[in-house]
Amino acid sequence: MKDNKAMVIFQPSGRRGEVPQGINLIEASRLLGVDIEALCGEKKVCGKCKVRIEQGRFEKFGIESRLTHVSAWQEEEEKFVNAEAREAGYRLACVTKVQGDLLVFVPEESRAGKQVVSKAARDIHIEHDPAVKLYYVEVEKPTFEEPTADFERIGHELKRQYGLANLRIDIHTLRQLPKVLRDGNWKVTVSVWMDQEVIRVRPGRVQDAYGLAIDVGTTTVAGYFCNLRTMEVVDTVSLMNPQCKYGEDVMARITYHMMTPDGLQRMSNDIIEGLNWLIDQAIAGTYPPKKKVKKKKGEEGPEEWVEVPEEGKTYLRLSREDIEDITLGGNTAMHHILLQLNPEYVGLAPFPPVIHHSLDIRARDLGIKINPSAYVFVLPNEAGFVGADNVGVLIAEEPYKNKEKQLIIDIGTNGELVLGDKDKLISSSCATGPALEGAQLAFGMRAAPGAIERIKIDPETHDVDYKVIGRDAWRKYSEPKEMKAKGICGSGILDVLAELYYAGVITKTGVFNKKNQKSNRFRVNPDNKQPEFVLAWAEETSIEKDIVITQKDVRQIQLAKGALHAGCKLMLRRMGVEKMDQVKIAGAFGTHVDRTKALIMGLFPDCEIEKIVSVGNAAGDGCRAALLNRAKREEANWVSRNVEYIELTVEPDFQTVFMEAMQIPHMKDEFPHLEGVVPPEILHQ
Amino acid sequence: MKDNKAMVIFQPSGRRGEVPQGINLIEASRLLGVDIEALCGEKKVCGKCKVRIEQGRFEKFGIESRLTHVSAWQEEEEKFVNAEAREAGYRLACVTKVQGDLLVFVPEESRAGKQVVSKAARDIHIEHDPAVKLYYVEVEKPTFEEPTADFERIGHELKRQYGLANLRIDIHTLRQLPKVLRDGNWKVTVSVWMDQEVIRVRPGRVQDAYGLAIDVGTTTVAGYFCNLRTMEVVDTVSLMNPQCKYGEDVMARITYHMMTPDGLQRMSNDIIEGLNWLIDQAIAGTYPPKKKVKKKKGEEGPEEWVEVPEEGKTYLRLSREDIEDITLGGNTAMHHILLQLNPEYVGLAPFPPVIHHSLDIRARDLGIKINPSAYVFVLPNEAGFVGADNVGVLIAEEPYKNKEKQLIIDIGTNGELVLGDKDKLISSSCATGPALEGAQLAFGMRAAPGAIERIKIDPETHDVDYKVIGRDAWRKYSEPKEMKAKGICGSGILDVLAELYYAGVITKTGVFNKKNQKSNRFRVNPDNKQPEFVLAWAEETSIEKDIVITQKDVRQIQLAKGALHAGCKLMLRRMGVEKMDQVKIAGAFGTHVDRTKALIMGLFPDCEIEKIVSVGNAAGDGCRAALLNRAKREEANWVSRNVEYIELTVEPDFQTVFMEAMQIPHMKDEFPHLEGVVPPEILHQ
Repeated sequence: MKDNKAMVIFQPSGRRGEVPQGINLIEASRLLGVDIEALCGEKKVCGKCKVRIEQGRFEKFGIESRLTHVSAWQEEEEKFVNAEAREAGYRLACVTKVQGDLLVFVPEESRAGKQVVSKAARDIHIEHDPAVKLYYVEVEKPTFEEPTADFERIGHELKRQYGLANLRIDIHTLRQLPKVLRDGNWKVTVSVWMDQEVIRVRPGRVQDAYGLAIDVGTTTVAGYFCNLRTMEVVDTVSLMNPQCKYGEDVMARITYHMMTPDGLQRMSNDIIEGLNWLIDQAIAGTYPPKKKVKKKKGEEGPEEWVEVPEEGKTYLRLSREDIEDITLGGNTAMHHILLQLNPEYVGLAPFPPVIHHSLDIRARDLGIKINPSAYVFVLPNEAGFVGADNVGVLIAEEPYKNKEKQLIIDIGTNGELVLGDKDKLISSSCATGPALEGAQLAFGMRAAPGAIERIKIDPETHDVDYKVIGRDAWRKYSEPKEMKAKGICGSGILDVLAELYYAGVITKTGVFNKKNQKSNRFRVNPDNKQPEFVLAWAEETSIEKDIVITQKDVRQIQLAKGALHAGCKLMLRRMGVEKMDQVKIAGAFGTHVDRTKALIMGLFPDCEIEKIVSVGNAAGDGCRAALLNRAKREEANWVSRNVEYIELTVEPDFQTVFMEAMQIPHMKDEFPHLEGVVPPEILHQ
Repeated sequence: MKDNKAMVIFQPSGRRGEVPQGINLIEASRLLGVDIEALCGEKKVCGKCKVRIEQGRFEKFGIESRLTHVSAWQEEEEKFVNAEAREAGYRLACVTKVQGDLLVFVPEESRAGKQVVSKAARDIHIEHDPAVKLYYVEVEKPTFEEPTADFERIGHELKRQYGLANLRIDIHTLRQLPKVLRDGNWKVTVSVWMDQEVIRVRPGRVQDAYGLAIDVGTTTVAGYFCNLRTMEVVDTVSLMNPQCKYGEDVMARITYHMMTPDGLQRMSNDIIEGLNWLIDQAIAGTYPPKKKVKKKKGEEGPEEWVEVPEEGKTYLRLSREDIEDITLGGNTAMHHILLQLNPEYVGLAPFPPVIHHSLDIRARDLGIKINPSAYVFVLPNEAGFVGADNVGVLIAEEPYKNKEKQLIIDIGTNGELVLGDKDKLISSSCATGPALEGAQLAFGMRAAPGAIERIKIDPETHDVDYKVIGRDAWRKYSEPKEMKAKGICGSGILDVLAELYYAGVITKTGVFNKKNQKSNRFRVNPDNKQPEFVLAWAEETSIEKDIVITQKDVRQIQLAKGALHAGCKLMLRRMGVEKMDQVKIAGAFGTHVDRTKALIMGLFPDCEIEKIVSVGNAAGDGCRAALLNRAKREEANWVSRNVEYIELTVEPDFQTVFMEAMQIPHMKDEFPHLEGVVPPEILHQ
């Protein structure tokens, strides 16, 4: 054992290693590649990072005591770790410091799970005019009479045949040129960026180039891998934003930057590494899957990996170099953190970003590993937190080309709102927080296998039917032990408030209706004296605990939907209109939202039900439009400066409107469009 | 290989010879006239004499191993040579003994005699319009009414006040912007490149920006460190091209690339490292020198380094970040190798370069450590080996603006020729080799202290008078032991052929005139049976050997001057003119050349003596012009495509003309302008 180091082993993963003494267990888990949930960014307020310090001697490493090898119990832990759990060795990883060799168990509910993201790209209309285009040229080889240089030789042809004048060339590509020209016997295909710069040369005639449109969400990063010639979406790839470990929402990330000397660098490195992983996934998908087989059939001998192509499928077999363009969108905080721009002032009134305008940055300058001469186009920001992602939504949905007044709600960890038509557009953001995505709830979790994503509560019996991710059959049609539920994720949360209200479990103020409970699912938790409602019994779970929704959870959801609803209302007022003609719901949940339930819970003001549409990942669609059409890049800059940003929190009656919006609405008065959809006893409650 | 002798070659000087085995490398260096710092007198305590034993086989001399040909590692070395350096082959010369053939690299800091490069930049007229300009702006701080982003905030002012529209900003600078704006209390100075891009922001009002114009020669790299506002040359810095270890001339370097898998990368890295060292020198010169002094005067105690400013001198105290622009010139091979462009085809008929046009490359993309957002402007190439350096000469001398037919000779390891006027310009190159720069001669050396730079031979007595660098008094006025001569450098070499011929020591064919020797200075070397002529007796030297010029040396010089002369002649013929109106001699020797002697030795065809001018480092001046004036960059591209390149070696009678040109010319016939300047008996010989 070296001085100042301690051996830490995490179970059940078995990851182990020496870490400096004095760091906390979250830091130790990062060093050793173990994912522990830290939704609050180590602010000691979410209680998600519970771990168990294991008893017993771990012979090999001489681990003896769980008591002296960790720092003392902290007052903040009492809120999340009760006496019994404390006795069993539970601690919060964020406050518990390593003081000697340790064996640490990470319970399933504290593990950061992998998220499931919707894969399909929506069909939107995009004119074909990508920033990167291919040109084929044939040139004569140099002679004494015409010993012109390689670059001028092809430059002359590009001008003569295609009218491309004054082209420059990136030094990386220039280095390839002599060999490529000669390998191709003076016939080459040239990739030209924005009619300005040669960014690739390949021998002979080549038809295709590829690009990636990436929407960097606070929680989820989604990439569309596109053929730049055919505009086809070759694949859709996604990953969890690796910055989640520093905090769940944009303010937590900004705080992490402000509290940690190299926090910005660290978060930027993490997302860049994530993007490179995403790129690897896109590339890997262009090869047949591999299987390990015996070298000779039926014989003894070594195994080897061989490709097993699916029948009738052709594989593109691409490399990183084949990705010649990337477009990136994200809210202002994600935009700034990725680019290592100080996000501090975006979080402070009057919330100025570092830059609005789009950026063309060489991928290599960001450490993004694609074609070395390629550029990354970063979409422009609007204002405050309404960033490049919302610009993406705008150029995908084009409300500025429409006579109807649209309200576009982009639901994420940060909610973004746009309202308007061809004459005027206003935008705003609201801190919905991560509750709608499953964080900060007692059993909230990410959209991973085992997450409850659909809920129905019977108004007569208060019985619950539900569906989990990874299993097609609903609870009603399954054995309890088949469900293996672990928690409740975003789309389940959007159901739950409406269902609880619709069934009469809660009142319009969000309080459990103690007089009207029809089953033993409603109870008061003996520990914290809080009312709660059981969604899944312990036997149906893989965590051996009842999955409940608590009074506090209901409040969290109300806060989130209240923020959205209030935002919409204030925007309508600013716009001087009574109601919108159309509501578009974008975001990770976009495709899942049950629009009736959204109306019942009051996610936004009333609208004709058939005028409510889900537009899926519109931000990602906008990135895709900018990838495949140069004009969309200019349009993005134009619209980003022509949306009027409204800071809602400074409206004098913001608090009042917000408080009202937290309630389940008076449907009869506020939602005439629910008439006939919702039973009269509910509607007129 | 003789018993008990070993061949040792010292790089980068190229000095070589056989030395007794068992002596240490300091002793070997003295025998071969190489100066290695040995401050402690070989007491193994100063660590100044670090040298690198070069890896690899040096074919010609059968040098194979750096491990077995030197004595074992000594404990004393550990204090000065760390593990990494040891791995790279570093040793202390004072403890390392010769045990076989060796190639030894003496790093600049271990060389006792630093090279003397003419420091003064020539006064040429340049219009002030640098690519990087500074703009001061004051902006309002963001408010709720005007929460515009930082970049748009200053962008708006730059447009309003200075008409700079559509500016972009480099990501590195954008990262600085929020802090700089706030540190400067919303008053900042912005560096704008080419009216296109913001490459630096500094708080408050700043007046000055700096740049470097660098001429990358095959042998010598010279940099002018300039104030971009005042155009003043703050300092001139230079170093030996570190690629010299791979070969003296351009073809040797190209061959090295072709024979060595990572040769191009290695040579490129070396010159980039050299440029960074040059930049360090320029920066270091802006601080007062430091001395080691006792902390308290007259007391015992630790010493520390303190700055000792010269009285009345102000110091700029700059950092690397303060260098915001660089212009680079070099012949096509140096250009290509630096940029890692394959130089192979430049060396093969019909000699096409990879690119003619100038390049704007981010300094960081080349690994050049200046302001991280700054660009390097690389001058364009003409054709063949006539590269960006000759373009530099052209934009400095502007023959295309002149009615007189000028011949411009740029003498370096590669000779470059331009002939023409405002109507037509032709250019060519000739392989002069490094002889005129002092390499490959028995006692050739670089222009360092102790180098013979001026020679006079008395025609009556054949006695020799000479002058060495670092001592003002000529031999005639000195005690023998005061001279401390070490060898003969370029400017001395340009004298010697004319003097030997003028005094009748050699004939017009360059052969020692055995019948006409008037002193014991002429002799036949007993070892190699070659005739030689003593320039300095052993007692006048610091190397304890007679410094001689051998028959072989005379041949080398003839080859070099023959190449130049033949080139000029063929160009005149191509141009269809009898003679040129003016001759300009550029290059490292430019300022030293004795024009009469140049005519006598036949360096170029006849011209009126008063029409021969020295223009010094015109290539460097051209780089400086491009640094300080944007229009010169366009002019460079224009002229590079409007000079007709002539490949002389393919002229059918090239060999004949070259053979003739090697002779000392028939002065009467070919050089009427020497009439009256040279004694009749010489002129009519």
